[in-house]
Amino acid sequence: MSIEGYTNFKWFLVTSPAEYVAHVQTNRPAKFNAYHEPMWLELNQIFNKLSVDSNVRAVVFSGAGDKAFTTGLDVQAASQGGILGGGENKLDIARQSVQIRRHVEEFQNCITSLEKCEKPVIAAMHGYAFGLAIDLSCCADIRIASKDTKFSVKEVDIGLAADIGTLARLPKIVGNHSWVKEVTLTARIFTAEEARQVGFVSHVEENKEKAVAKAVALATLIASKSPIAVQGTKELLNHARENTTAATLRYTGVWNSAALHTDDVKAALLSGIKKTKPTFSKL
Amino acid sequence: MSIEGYTNFKWFLVTSPAEYVAHVQTNRPAKFNAYHEPMWLELNQIFNKLSVDSNVRAVVFSGAGDKAFTTGLDVQAASQGGILGGGENKLDIARQSVQIRRHVEEFQNCITSLEKCEKPVIAAMHGYAFGLAIDLSCCADIRIASKDTKFSVKEVDIGLAADIGTLARLPKIVGNHSWVKEVTLTARIFTAEEARQVGFVSHVEENKEKAVAKAVALATLIASKSPIAVQGTKELLNHARENTTAATLRYTGVWNSAALHTDDVKAALLSGIKKTKPTFSKL
Amino acid sequence: MSIEGYTNFKWFLVTSPAEYVAHVQTNRPAKFNAYHEPMWLELNQIFNKLSVDSNVRAVVFSGAGDKAFTTGLDVQAASQGGILGGGENKLDIARQSVQIRRHVEEFQNCITSLEKCEKPVIAAMHGYAFGLAIDLSCCADIRIASKDTKFSVKEVDIGLAADIGTLARLPKIVGNHSWVKEVTLTARIFTAEEARQVGFVSHVEENKEKAVAKAVALATLIASKSPIAVQGTKELLNHARENTTAATLRYTGVWNSAALHTDDVKAALLSGIKKTKPTFSKL
Amino acid sequence: MSIEGYTNFKWFLVTSPAEYVAHVQTNRPAKFNAYHEPMWLELNQIFNKLSVDSNVRAVVFSGAGDKAFTTGLDVQAASQGGILGGGENKLDIARQSVQIRRHVEEFQNCITSLEKCEKPVIAAMHGYAFGLAIDLSCCADIRIASKDTKFSVKEVDIGLAADIGTLARLPKIVGNHSWVKEVTLTARIFTAEEARQVGFVSHVEENKEKAVAKAVALATLIASKSPIAVQGTKELLNHARENTTAATLRYTGVWNSAALHTDDVKAALLSGIKKTKPTFSKL
Amino acid sequence: MSIEGYTNFKWFLVTSPAEYVAHVQTNRPAKFNAYHEPMWLELNQIFNKLSVDSNVRAVVFSGAGDKAFTTGLDVQAASQGGILGGGENKLDIARQSVQIRRHVEEFQNCITSLEKCEKPVIAAMHGYAFGLAIDLSCCADIRIASKDTKFSVKEVDIGLAADIGTLARLPKIVGNHSWVKEVTLTARIFTAEEARQVGFVSHVEENKEKAVAKAVALATLIASKSPIAVQGTKELLNHARENTTAATLRYTGVWNSAALHTDDVKAALLSGIKKTKPTFSKL
Amino acid sequence: MSIEGYTNFKWFLVTSPAEYVAHVQTNRPAKFNAYHEPMWLELNQIFNKLSVDSNVRAVVFSGAGDKAFTTGLDVQAASQGGILGGGENKLDIARQSVQIRRHVEEFQNCITSLEKCEKPVIAAMHGYAFGLAIDLSCCADIRIASKDTKFSVKEVDIGLAADIGTLARLPKIVGNHSWVKEVTLTARIFTAEEARQVGFVSHVEENKEKAVAKAVALATLIASKSPIAVQGTKELLNHARENTTAATLRYTGVWNSAALHTDDVKAALLSGIKKTKPTFSKL
Repeated sequence: MSIEGYTNFKWFLVTSPAEYVAHVQTNRPAKFNAYHEPMWLELNQIFNKLSVDSNVRAVVFSGAGDKAFTTGLDVQAASQGGILGGGENKLDIARQSVQIRRHVEEFQNCITSLEKCEKPVIAAMHGYAFGLAIDLSCCADIRIASKDTKFSVKEVDIGLAADIGTLARLPKIVGNHSWVKEVTLTARIFTAEEARQVGFVSHVEENKEKAVAKAVALATLIASKSPIAVQGTKELLNHARENTTAATLRYTGVWNSAALHTDDVKAALLSGIKKTKPTFSKL
Repeated sequence: MSIEGYTNFKWFLVTSPAEYVAHVQTNRPAKFNAYHEPMWLELNQIFNKLSVDSNVRAVVFSGAGDKAFTTGLDVQAASQGGILGGGENKLDIARQSVQIRRHVEEFQNCITSLEKCEKPVIAAMHGYAFGLAIDLSCCADIRIASKDTKFSVKEVDIGLAADIGTLARLPKIVGNHSWVKEVTLTARIFTAEEARQVGFVSHVEENKEKAVAKAVALATLIASKSPIAVQGTKELLNHARENTTAATLRYTGVWNSAALHTDDVKAALLSGIKKTKPTFSKL
Repeated sequence: MSIEGYTNFKWFLVTSPAEYVAHVQTNRPAKFNAYHEPMWLELNQIFNKLSVDSNVRAVVFSGAGDKAFTTGLDVQAASQGGILGGGENKLDIARQSVQIRRHVEEFQNCITSLEKCEKPVIAAMHGYAFGLAIDLSCCADIRIASKDTKFSVKEVDIGLAADIGTLARLPKIVGNHSWVKEVTLTARIFTAEEARQVGFVSHVEENKEKAVAKAVALATLIASKSPIAVQGTKELLNHARENTTAATLRYTGVWNSAALHTDDVKAALLSGIKKTKPTFSKL
Repeated sequence: MSIEGYTNFKWFLVTSPAEYVAHVQTNRPAKFNAYHEPMWLELNQIFNKLSVDSNVRAVVFSGAGDKAFTTGLDVQAASQGGILGGGENKLDIARQSVQIRRHVEEFQNCITSLEKCEKPVIAAMHGYAFGLAIDLSCCADIRIASKDTKFSVKEVDIGLAADIGTLARLPKIVGNHSWVKEVTLTARIFTAEEARQVGFVSHVEENKEKAVAKAVALATLIASKSPIAVQGTKELLNHARENTTAATLRYTGVWNSAALHTDDVKAALLSGIKKTKPTFSKL
Repeated sequence: MSIEGYTNFKWFLVTSPAEYVAHVQTNRPAKFNAYHEPMWLELNQIFNKLSVDSNVRAVVFSGAGDKAFTTGLDVQAASQGGILGGGENKLDIARQSVQIRRHVEEFQNCITSLEKCEKPVIAAMHGYAFGLAIDLSCCADIRIASKDTKFSVKEVDIGLAADIGTLARLPKIVGNHSWVKEVTLTARIFTAEEARQVGFVSHVEENKEKAVAKAVALATLIASKSPIAVQGTKELLNHARENTTAATLRYTGVWNSAALHTDDVKAALLSGIKKTKPTFSKL
Repeated sequence: MSIEGYTNFKWFLVTSPAEYVAHVQTNRPAKFNAYHEPMWLELNQIFNKLSVDSNVRAVVFSGAGDKAFTTGLDVQAASQGGILGGGENKLDIARQSVQIRRHVEEFQNCITSLEKCEKPVIAAMHGYAFGLAIDLSCCADIRIASKDTKFSVKEVDIGLAADIGTLARLPKIVGNHSWVKEVTLTARIFTAEEARQVGFVSHVEENKEKAVAKAVALATLIASKSPIAVQGTKELLNHARENTTAATLRYTGVWNSAALHTDDVKAALLSGIKKTKPTFSKL
């Protein structure tokens, strides 16, 4: 059952499997969790809300049902009036291009909400993880897969270059560009084990349940730490990915000049001495 | 036999092992495919031509003969009048430095033509792959090796820092900097298997024939996809490597605002429904 | 025994295990080599000196004693008057923040001296390698570990985001961001073997002695090469990590327009022909 | 009277002085158009709407009343519960800092909506133009002032560094850093004429009416041009300010590969030949 | 009469008004020096040649005839088969877009040859200086105008955003963005005096002859200096425009580590003492 | 007389003309304040000290004597053993180049200390201001000149490209690149009035005394403001010069999340209401 404040969402189930942990599930299993526009708009709302929700310190993201994390874009919906729609548009090509660009940017912004969420996001994937599945999970901080996951950067197979983030992020988070190029240019399926070997996921579990359990365990562990420390760590790592080392060092000094005024340091040190579990106030 | 339009090249053999696939071989096997200046000038011409040749959708790059992908710079040639030549140059050191810089830049530009080629390039390596072999293969999109390949970033052994691209690209395409530093600072030989483990190559095959066959198979698969999708994918991945995520997302939106006007999407979707092989018009 | 010119340092032992090789050991084994402020100030002095010492061509960095490379910040010292001290500071929060920022920046600069050292630095780690251990080793060029090494990006456990360089550098030197996020957000211990698999270290040795011996062997090998070539290689790889490929290619051309005027090329080529060991003059 | 679709806004008056031109006025003259939070939230909505409103091709932005473009932040409101509020906050300093950062970022985002608006924005300023007035007008594309304008980067006078955009943008849009530093560090008032001489505004008019009239005339002229050409020009200039020349040239090529498919080129060329005024369809 | 080696060019006149000075004139006065494709291809050849011609140390660039520096793109030619051509292209829109992008990039590269020329380029402008005139002169190092020059960033008037460099470079070389936006968004004509006031040109002369004479005098002065010093200065200033201060300082140190080995320093110092005119050897 | 703590400096006079204001004078008037190595090393020490001296909130920088701000590098000293020395160096050219690079970098770092100084620096210039005078004053925040100042970017006249910062900074702080290129490529003298018109200096005063007095007055005004606000303003403006707008906005939010915890805001607001002069505690 969705937790309070998150019950109005139609396409996602938001539960709390542990203290300070939220679990967001794409909830359209009958369609293999394929996405159409109302879904990414809703996703954006959810993650913006989680980002500043002081009851949440870590988020697990998965897909409902046995079959799929998500098979990606609902191509049928996209072909009817959507981005791949065509139809008798009376605008000239340049004007249609402006509409496409605006549409792609809005879509990108919605997916980017996972990355912008101030709390760590752990993707737990299973079954089909095609197309948008990769865009989405590239925005997560940590990726876990069940053994049966079938990944594919599927976009070239429908005649387009992936434009919702995979091509922008994958080369920055996986340090094996020969492999990155291969799977994006061929759209071939790759397994969870292959994903682990090249560093796309950091754990492979026996089945979906165990993958989600592992994600929840990691989230619970993270949620037990100082939220000041955890959220600063996420922010600074993301900054490092996009900036020079010198710029990140400088940013880090400024960041911590505020963050070190936290009571969490004292609480953490004390509990370290006393061998107790520290309690950190809300953030 | 070289395909039409590519028969005039002296140092390279350009064939077509499959529809829309070109195979470029460095063809100086008697000298272990070592490079001297006329060769990189010719290489530049070939890849500039392939880049806009609408009969080509993917390129395999290998070395002729049993012995070597290439042993790198032909040091003997380079010592006689070339960049390492010395000789009685009457210019002052600063003026000689200008000449060296211009020479290095021209050399770099020629090798960069593999990276700039709009079509994916797959390097299939075997035997000796020393020095320039690494510069060249770092410009390829996908790297495949036969089991017998002996790699070495050889340059420190001849008293210089590699300047034709290895040091600029290797840290960006292999995410194990401890290893990158080790092999570039020591010039030690590493095997195909080691290259695979660290993510420099994505496949190791039994022998040269199988490595080339694997490369041709991958190229053929890529060539069967929409060229609009494939070439956009290469471009956007290369953009991502050099820019921030936000900049690449923006660039992607603009790129696809033009590219989504392709008939390939409809063709791909239709053939997906009909379970037929789509046909894409030339690009 | 510390080598000449390096005997005045209190917290570090600097020896020369081989020609042109320096070995720097953090020398506070009774405290698990934990760091307090006088130590990082001294470290800075040592590496600035090594950087321009013509008798040194490669540096090994390790920790004295059986227990630890270093357990990181000496938290007790830091809590007494140091950065985590608190105490009755009469300045307003903004002014305290300025002091914190200056302190963090000075600390960062000291650790960065390993990275700025013009000579390659090889970290040989063993036992506990917590917190600052990761900041320090991220500044080394090559990382080697003994089998017993217990690594942890420990900072979140004391309520803060790591601010001396780990978060700035780790995502740039390890191409598996799912793992990077996991270990930095959870502070969990990871083993030498795990470190090797994800590419944080490039060798795991049986025990501390063998790890140091391996580091010394690598350093000796590097020290036998042209120092012009070796130091240029370090510089250009570090440049590549922070700049676009095009910028590094340009920088490389300018760099080598000076560096190719070295006698080392001739020496290296001759000794290659004569099968002798080349001698390179001091740098 | 506010034009259709813009009548629900409380703090701004949105009119249409000419075809395809919108005029947005900060409408709190009794308070010298000082801003409090509901105002910048509303401003954000308005400019996001204008950005995609096909009836609008250029926007004029000014302040209602005789006295002021705006005196900036409503300090009284800000001191009561707002960002400068203080009050008995029970959070620790680090947690308060997170709240401040989120608040500043939201505030910045609202003001940035002028810059992100796809249509050119012309600020027409008069009377007091203090603090936020500079942040706002730096986001406009063109700045015009009446002779009586009294500008001040006022923030240091209330004990803080300007954080809503002035310090980020002013050094990028005015090429006289000695002057930029002087006015930002001293908070001294500068006149419209001085602003013109250093290049902060491009026109000074006799009084407010003439300043607004000039702005409307410029907006009308811009609105008479191809919207594809105009909006592309704004986008590419803003891109140039933030990127290298090479990156902008590349982006421009991709941008125009879509934009040149417009019917506007033909319309413009024809009307050039026929000496008629071209008509461009909506965008 | 064109100087030796430059006589084969059809659309440009290349003379030598002073020792080490070349004067390149667009030579199509009957058409107001409007550009079509063969012209920019030729321009590229000329500037690539001047860049490495040791007889040339500074270049003046102007337009032949009384009427115009250049009125820009020859729109008629461009409409017939060229980039604005339209016609019955059978390719789908995406494929046409690829052709447009390639075309724009080739055009940009040709114009960029002025910027890449290692020798300083001084544009002397007169009469009509529309469209491409601005792209071209933005690539020059120094801009001089005769009083009668009528400038216009004309592109929006033909329905497109300027794509050959004006929008990429103008905001980087003129520090008055309010003005830059105004003239690019309105396409209004501006005078030489206005251009001087905003810093687009650095001198206004009475008429074309005097403008060219001024340019030749400046070029002659520059050509009398050490070419090592002059060409280094151009390179480092262009680097500064595109990079951070820290990066340029580093690049400068490396650049001068080669350049300071010149005999020119001694020659310059000696002639300074002896009050004679130094002679510098060719570069 | 030098103020306490600054009396040991040999080449500079450091006085305090007003509360919280330091005045640093290059004090070698007999040699036109020309610089040799001990001077820039001392300068570095002074500005590093001023940067964290809580008794100082603004700094004036000028040259002692009637004749010169500084004529730049003491060429005679530089020719004897210094960077321009030549002499019988037994190292090969590449090794000499390393020494030159290290020397240039150390020199650059010393001059950069003005820019890094956390307190605003105002350069008051008079008489000769050649070569290093420009490097130095480009590091100041505000530049003021007496009418008699004769500026020259003199370096090309001694056969080298300016390498201590002028070429890196001038294009970033003066938005008239045609002029920047002209004065750097020709080394021609320009006047204070010309400097003011192009935006290199922001005030021209009748004579040296008035220039210094103006600088002291500005410094005194700045020193009367909140040091938290002032130092934040300097930092954020310098950040803006080197980073994208988005990056600076983000950095600003983090910066002020610490800085807004200052008592200065309350003090400033109160004194604004009470019309009194606020007092700010030390920083």
